[in-house]
Amino acid sequence: MSKGEATKAAILRQAVTVASVNGLEGLSIGRLAELTGLSKSGLFGHFGSKEALQRAVLEAVVEDFRVKVILPALGEASGIDRLERLFTGWIEWAAADDKTGGCPLLAAAFELDDQPGDLRDYLAEQERAWFDCIARIAAKAVAQNQLRGDLDTAQFAFEFHAIGLGFNFAYRLLDDRKAADRAATAFRRLVASAAA
Amino acid sequence: MSKGEATKAAILRQAVTVASVNGLEGLSIGRLAELTGLSKSGLFGHFGSKEALQRAVLEAVVEDFRVKVILPALGEASGIDRLERLFTGWIEWAAADDKTGGCPLLAAAFELDDQPGDLRDYLAEQERAWFDCIARIAAKAVAQNQLRGDLDTAQFAFEFHAIGLGFNFAYRLLDDRKAADRAATAFRRLVASAAA
Repeated sequence: MSKGEATKAAILRQAVTVASVNGLEGLSIGRLAELTGLSKSGLFGHFGSKEALQRAVLEAVVEDFRVKVILPALGEASGIDRLERLFTGWIEWAAADDKTGGCPLLAAAFELDDQPGDLRDYLAEQERAWFDCIARIAAKAVAQNQLRGDLDTAQFAFEFHAIGLGFNFAYRLLDDRKAADRAATAFRRLVASAAA
Repeated sequence: MSKGEATKAAILRQAVTVASVNGLEGLSIGRLAELTGLSKSGLFGHFGSKEALQRAVLEAVVEDFRVKVILPALGEASGIDRLERLFTGWIEWAAADDKTGGCPLLAAAFELDDQPGDLRDYLAEQERAWFDCIARIAAKAVAQNQLRGDLDTAQFAFEFHAIGLGFNFAYRLLDDRKAADRAATAFRRLVASAAA
């Protein structure tokens, strides 16, 4: 990594934290300049615009999610074990200490859902890919006869994802200490109802 | 309603729409002055501060939710019928045309979850009351032997709520036309697994 790249990566980490707490809209070049001690013009040199910075933040979080949630699940034996790893990995990732303000993708989803534009399109595309990833891993479990043959894997993905949303909500807004247990119970019920 | 109250109510309706699209943070007195054609000082006269305006918006949405979702469900026979009415009412309310930008309470939940203060406390309290309302209606169905005696009603409320979150996400961000069907399927599965 060149010095320029290292600087950019350090700025991005800071930007992800800001977005996690204040949302993408709260992510201004001016604010970031204050936090990093860099000049506004220097930051513009790295990112070009507020929207480019917001996009870079989303891309960084998506990549972090891929590395910390999806890849470890793909390292697990396919079938129900892999689904479980995917679910547990997601919950752990969402609750991790580096996400002061919760999952920046979820915050962005509720922030951008009604704001047409490239940023919303990018996020929706990534989220659809996430649903597809869940459905594909479920389909593999169907192919291995661990889940039943007539399982609607898109419905499974919808419910898997809903439980994760429920966890984030209860954990972050309601400070519910049982949130992870509740999510795990709901996930076990989902898998049991889909079992072959 | 006095003329002053009618004006305040009209401003609030506009403010709820702004909050629904741009979030509570996007809800400034200046912005609202532009949209309503009223003076900033006039708006300050009605609300006093940005935070008071944000609080008034949350209170207005909570009241709308009570009138359009909770009261109709309480008008239904208690038990599973009432749970179903509560669920369907929620989905219909969340998808209603007057919510250009989706449910303002959910948007606020993901916006405020990491911003300590009175506004967050108020919202968390309202959301806890909503979970309790679901759990109480489920408990009534248990008492009537429609749901099983050992049902964990708080877990039931967590899952009920998670499905609603999943609906909002799929409907608003992913433009999923099947979102309401998926949510209804998930809800039926939840009730079936809890049935006596």
